[in-house]
Amino acid sequence: VSEGSLLGGVLARGKAARHVEDRSLVTAMLDVEAALARAQARAGLVPVAAAEAITAACRRLQDVDFAELGAEATRSGNPIVPLVRALEQSAGEIAGPYVHLASTSQDVLDTALMLISWRATLPLLDDLAAAADLSAALAAEHRDTVMVGRTLLQHARPTTFGLKAASWTDGLDAAGDRLRAARALLPVQVGGAAGTRSGLSGRGAAVADALADELGLAPAALPWHGLRLPLLDLAAALGAVAAVAGKVALDVVLLAQDEVAEVSDGAPDRGGSSAMPHKRNPVAAVSVRAAALRVPGLVATLLTTAQLHEHERAAGAWHAEWEPLRDLVSTTGSAVAWLADTVEHLVVDTDAMRATARLSQHRTGAEQWAAALAPRLGRAAAHELVRSAVASADPGAALREGAGPGRDVDTILTEMVDVLEQTGEARQLVDAFLARRSTR
Amino acid sequence: VSEGSLLGGVLARGKAARHVEDRSLVTAMLDVEAALARAQARAGLVPVAAAEAITAACRRLQDVDFAELGAEATRSGNPIVPLVRALEQSAGEIAGPYVHLASTSQDVLDTALMLISWRATLPLLDDLAAAADLSAALAAEHRDTVMVGRTLLQHARPTTFGLKAASWTDGLDAAGDRLRAARALLPVQVGGAAGTRSGLSGRGAAVADALADELGLAPAALPWHGLRLPLLDLAAALGAVAAVAGKVALDVVLLAQDEVAEVSDGAPDRGGSSAMPHKRNPVAAVSVRAAALRVPGLVATLLTTAQLHEHERAAGAWHAEWEPLRDLVSTTGSAVAWLADTVEHLVVDTDAMRATARLSQHRTGAEQWAAALAPRLGRAAAHELVRSAVASADPGAALREGAGPGRDVDTILTEMVDVLEQTGEARQLVDAFLARRSTR
Amino acid sequence: VSEGSLLGGVLARGKAARHVEDRSLVTAMLDVEAALARAQARAGLVPVAAAEAITAACRRLQDVDFAELGAEATRSGNPIVPLVRALEQSAGEIAGPYVHLASTSQDVLDTALMLISWRATLPLLDDLAAAADLSAALAAEHRDTVMVGRTLLQHARPTTFGLKAASWTDGLDAAGDRLRAARALLPVQVGGAAGTRSGLSGRGAAVADALADELGLAPAALPWHGLRLPLLDLAAALGAVAAVAGKVALDVVLLAQDEVAEVSDGAPDRGGSSAMPHKRNPVAAVSVRAAALRVPGLVATLLTTAQLHEHERAAGAWHAEWEPLRDLVSTTGSAVAWLADTVEHLVVDTDAMRATARLSQHRTGAEQWAAALAPRLGRAAAHELVRSAVASADPGAALREGAGPGRDVDTILTEMVDVLEQTGEARQLVDAFLARRSTR
Amino acid sequence: VSEGSLLGGVLARGKAARHVEDRSLVTAMLDVEAALARAQARAGLVPVAAAEAITAACRRLQDVDFAELGAEATRSGNPIVPLVRALEQSAGEIAGPYVHLASTSQDVLDTALMLISWRATLPLLDDLAAAADLSAALAAEHRDTVMVGRTLLQHARPTTFGLKAASWTDGLDAAGDRLRAARALLPVQVGGAAGTRSGLSGRGAAVADALADELGLAPAALPWHGLRLPLLDLAAALGAVAAVAGKVALDVVLLAQDEVAEVSDGAPDRGGSSAMPHKRNPVAAVSVRAAALRVPGLVATLLTTAQLHEHERAAGAWHAEWEPLRDLVSTTGSAVAWLADTVEHLVVDTDAMRATARLSQHRTGAEQWAAALAPRLGRAAAHELVRSAVASADPGAALREGAGPGRDVDTILTEMVDVLEQTGEARQLVDAFLARRSTR
Repeated sequence: VSEGSLLGGVLARGKAARHVEDRSLVTAMLDVEAALARAQARAGLVPVAAAEAITAACRRLQDVDFAELGAEATRSGNPIVPLVRALEQSAGEIAGPYVHLASTSQDVLDTALMLISWRATLPLLDDLAAAADLSAALAAEHRDTVMVGRTLLQHARPTTFGLKAASWTDGLDAAGDRLRAARALLPVQVGGAAGTRSGLSGRGAAVADALADELGLAPAALPWHGLRLPLLDLAAALGAVAAVAGKVALDVVLLAQDEVAEVSDGAPDRGGSSAMPHKRNPVAAVSVRAAALRVPGLVATLLTTAQLHEHERAAGAWHAEWEPLRDLVSTTGSAVAWLADTVEHLVVDTDAMRATARLSQHRTGAEQWAAALAPRLGRAAAHELVRSAVASADPGAALREGAGPGRDVDTILTEMVDVLEQTGEARQLVDAFLARRSTR
Repeated sequence: VSEGSLLGGVLARGKAARHVEDRSLVTAMLDVEAALARAQARAGLVPVAAAEAITAACRRLQDVDFAELGAEATRSGNPIVPLVRALEQSAGEIAGPYVHLASTSQDVLDTALMLISWRATLPLLDDLAAAADLSAALAAEHRDTVMVGRTLLQHARPTTFGLKAASWTDGLDAAGDRLRAARALLPVQVGGAAGTRSGLSGRGAAVADALADELGLAPAALPWHGLRLPLLDLAAALGAVAAVAGKVALDVVLLAQDEVAEVSDGAPDRGGSSAMPHKRNPVAAVSVRAAALRVPGLVATLLTTAQLHEHERAAGAWHAEWEPLRDLVSTTGSAVAWLADTVEHLVVDTDAMRATARLSQHRTGAEQWAAALAPRLGRAAAHELVRSAVASADPGAALREGAGPGRDVDTILTEMVDVLEQTGEARQLVDAFLARRSTR
Repeated sequence: VSEGSLLGGVLARGKAARHVEDRSLVTAMLDVEAALARAQARAGLVPVAAAEAITAACRRLQDVDFAELGAEATRSGNPIVPLVRALEQSAGEIAGPYVHLASTSQDVLDTALMLISWRATLPLLDDLAAAADLSAALAAEHRDTVMVGRTLLQHARPTTFGLKAASWTDGLDAAGDRLRAARALLPVQVGGAAGTRSGLSGRGAAVADALADELGLAPAALPWHGLRLPLLDLAAALGAVAAVAGKVALDVVLLAQDEVAEVSDGAPDRGGSSAMPHKRNPVAAVSVRAAALRVPGLVATLLTTAQLHEHERAAGAWHAEWEPLRDLVSTTGSAVAWLADTVEHLVVDTDAMRATARLSQHRTGAEQWAAALAPRLGRAAAHELVRSAVASADPGAALREGAGPGRDVDTILTEMVDVLEQTGEARQLVDAFLARRSTR
Repeated sequence: VSEGSLLGGVLARGKAARHVEDRSLVTAMLDVEAALARAQARAGLVPVAAAEAITAACRRLQDVDFAELGAEATRSGNPIVPLVRALEQSAGEIAGPYVHLASTSQDVLDTALMLISWRATLPLLDDLAAAADLSAALAAEHRDTVMVGRTLLQHARPTTFGLKAASWTDGLDAAGDRLRAARALLPVQVGGAAGTRSGLSGRGAAVADALADELGLAPAALPWHGLRLPLLDLAAALGAVAAVAGKVALDVVLLAQDEVAEVSDGAPDRGGSSAMPHKRNPVAAVSVRAAALRVPGLVATLLTTAQLHEHERAAGAWHAEWEPLRDLVSTTGSAVAWLADTVEHLVVDTDAMRATARLSQHRTGAEQWAAALAPRLGRAAAHELVRSAVASADPGAALREGAGPGRDVDTILTEMVDVLEQTGEARQLVDAFLARRSTR
């Protein structure tokens, strides 16, 4: 699904999707053919004039009817065969024979797929960085914003929204690191018919390096027609990005519940329902999830096909990669674009957070009460006393009674009472995280 | 990916893909809005004239700019909200208020998705039936075509190509049955804002039944906004179809290997390579696999999202279904369209099959030799004797020597010698299968 | 993971898991070998005394050291080869040669896997029926329990807990129907070395039918060594069961949030935390999710391997099914066992439900206000007026002002005010559902 | 499935599986509790004597009945709660209160899962290195072993077995690099009840660092209760390992086909069938595939659950990770152990390879013929001439006729005739690869 489509606004937001559309893939294929001719010229295999003619022909073919290419592709099983034919004709009698020299369809298609992935992940990384920076700003701003921490969707202990946002940021940064690393490894493919680089007169390595240089991709010491690690690296990194984005969005939709109401989507003119005038649906976060939930299935498909490449080129497993790879890039891109939007427009209700934390302090303080009473009563008895006291109508009275005479329970209760002081090392963790981050 | 796209010829062949394209989905949405108005008119909730006006407006909107709808959809998270707005305007002042009455976006989008699935699976089932019929014809034609049976990709025992084709057919028929059953259950969605059918004045059941009748879909006794069995039924059936198609295609590409050469793709003008003039790639079977291998990941996505629908409408899991569902239909459709082509153009080299079977008869006869010698030598000893004899230069001599003097090994060897007579009940199985099939 | 293991109490609860453990699988393999001998005796291929001796030997071997079988299995790639050897020895000189007659490892292992699936799904269906019945009882009991309906995790319109429980029940019933149907189709496998039923003297069909009769499984008209629909049928049904179970559990954990607190897990002595004395974690519902979330990946694996069975027996794809199939049964069984527990111990706080619904009635009534004002103001204007009124401090005043003088807004506001009367057809839907269910 | 089980010999081979068994996980949990006490002692939070007493208690509890722990775990949802209780009792009155100080179940279970992953991946990496080294030796040995290259399972162009083995090696090395990197990042988990490290008196960072030091794991700057990148890194790396292993095994089973017979499994006493004495099934390679095919589904499950961790601890998604993670480690370990066995016992029939390459030289030379004739005839005409010549009975005659009089076709045909000289840069690629590898 591309952005300019019926569902693309919601499901394929952002620039990444555009870079993997048909038009962009055709452009990339032509860029690869042109760069290949120039690389072979640099290696002395193709006259410079021919390389220039081929480059010009590739430029002329940018508007080729790709639906027609697609239709012709049914004869050979891929669109490179008809594209090369068109290119030969366009390049003219002299340059024509140098088109696609000693190359195979997979060389061009694999390299083009790497190229569109490389191009698409640049804006994706920008959006990811934007989301992370916005999230880091939330961490700084809300360093002291107490809120209840929730485990198994139950109130647990107090934490801060700053720590939550720092965790999000850390995840986004780390996933971005993985994607940047995978992106830098996206290689060209130079193998020829059966991966031996025959027909390149022993200059295969030079051609491969020059092609990488022309396109800005990584070189490939060996052809990888049947060993698909470059795709898996990219898929793993995108999977990590989507997982973190999905987790952040899940936290947001949970915090945006009417009963919780600690955050909301503050984007103007958004979130309405066709039926219900009052609705303020957290559309951005919902759209993150809509995209992110598709990712595991796409990664699994690439992990599956990667082990099914027979010998020097696969009979189906290769072709089965094309769409999942593009979908993976565009849907992860959409998740990240919506995530940046989510974080940018996140309205944080610090009063609501604090109020809930206070309201819940007989629950969230329970662990500390039990810890304070444990030396006196024994751990199990203290745990049990606090458990039943918390469930009673007047926790304080129940605790005093259960702890027995002579024990300084009042002090404990008083010391414990301010939930706002019970956030452990949340502040230090945020401060240390932001300090580390500032030196990245 | 749609058929008229760069990769669609290979990856989205067939009519199913067209029925799930954006244009078809918009048409379905409009068909649903129109049918809803008529159904509500039949239930006495909407004036007949208004229903007619809405139906006419839906017809006029067929050419609506769906990219624009998609762009507006980012505000509410789905394209129904802007579509309804456009429809109200088009329907005019009197009919306008009856547009989308008491309905919610999910009612229309779910019903539209069911409708395009229903429409797309009709040609898909036709292609599947064609593939099955062609395969059944192969079973009949090759009832007596002996070939080697292969287990773990090793020669095992003789079988017939007829039995192989009968198995394929049986799988295709059975998968088709599952799809037909799932198709017949594809329901309308009538729930309203929160699934209570409020606003329908107690006539909800009548509206739902009438809507089903208008559209040819199944009625829905309860709204299924959050319980997604209809999608899972469809996904399971399409998964089964793709699995069988993929298995048949795998057999074909394996039989088409140059070393095996028992079948080939006989379609004219197909199978060429951009580099290698001699190549006759089994493009059709390869394209079946290219499509089928994507299916498990898509089904898994729907199985995942199905358990993530919160309460009365999901915050992401619903939106995450839209593309996988369409991809699942189009890619399974492509697998089946290519499969019909594969089987139609399958050239079966019965001589090669027979020759391999004969050549391998010292291997494929081994089980019977061991069985024949077991009563004399004991099972383990007979097994071991045959194992070593088969691995030797002259299996017959080794067997005679190992079986010892006085034993009537010659007869055994002679009886066993014609591998063509060792296909067990292959013929009966084929005959019985085809007889059963003729009465389906 | 089996129930009597470190994580099995949480992740492999219920009887289904026990039926797919190693011990149960060995028992099933022996049951199949014994039934095969008897079936072949019924078909006149094996002396009755030999079949009896084999049956007795199978009984004696129940306590076979399966770890030893497992170790020996590394030589042939499956445990049937060493099991058959042990069985021959145990059966004695006369009966020994009739052990495993004309059969192959896959015949026995496939049939045994079907048999343990058949056995395991019986208690699974019992647990599922229990969960459904308990859920139906909730639907009846809470027919009139108003609660807020939630879409995209936002308050939408009022509904009833009865309708929610009816939806759950409907899903559970429907998933159970699918599983019952799939269970009834679990077939025996009778194919012999290469699926031709050679060595059965033309009595293959009789043997297959008798074997099915002996074991209570479905007959198999054709061997299905390479066409794995029976597994896919089962997987699809279990996938549906897990999806519904997971959806119900998700609703429960969301309703059990401290901020929502409309349900809780009332099981005694459960839900504690190692650190926090106050915690009442909804352990049962959490454990449903823990199991259900694993299911899509397992189903996807079986859908993948199903298309990778080469020719007459797969070189890896067959072996790759064994564990996912067992895991799928045990983990779905666990999801269902925990679900029955969840629903059984569900404490429903109807006061909390009602209170939230009332508190939210300016939101949940918004749709009706807008509908009531639409004829006067036009739909868009009414929608906008209600949207801004709801967001204001005094919705009533804002509505009155916005609607303008002379309009009978008071009546509308009054009519709308009782959210408890705004649950649409929730009651009818529940009544009709329960009536239909009582005649199942 | 563990190695000492019915199917574990085939499906859970190798030491990795043992390290993730229940017994090993309990050991790891106890190691974590002991290390935690020591780390807290180093941070001044726990008396050294108490840490020693706890360490001793952990040693005493090694034989704890883990089935009993598992049964008790149903109350809290995880086995840490009962383990801590047992540990407190065993540690005695003075040390008891310092057990599990300021920790939560997830701290211990997450760290223990990282620890068993760390332990299990060491032998896994050893097996992987062994497979890679053996494969590299094949590359060196078969640097000059010509074989036919196969694309889409059709003969394409000549290559060498050395290049194929070099590609395998490259993939194994690269996957190993990824696993080594992921392994080095496996972190401890120190967060406490809600991830704020409360109760550690501001010494949380010191405790986390000391714990990492005690266990040999990586430190964790922030708790990662809800952000699961460490699991995703590991899963991605294992996925890559399994994908490469599966690809190598697929090549092996394809080359081991009776019709191809270029390699075989030379392990003594292996590969037999229960029915067919002649069978030499490639059991090791089949077992690689049996394991590897399970991996994508497991990775997808972890990618899914990773985006479903709510807030500070997940209500199901966390629990759903435990088994897939262990299965992923053990099944990838099995794939790798079997792969080392496969490569070690691979018998390469160089004569068969050469013979097939020669036999196929009219096919595999076609590309070069076309290239040689292209300057004379034009590319398309040359391609078409060669295509039809290759398909004819006498390719040489057809070529000569088609190329026309006066053209020096004989020379071309002669130059092209020796397929053994047509392997392009295969030798250089192998030499360069091995040279690079020797400096790793």
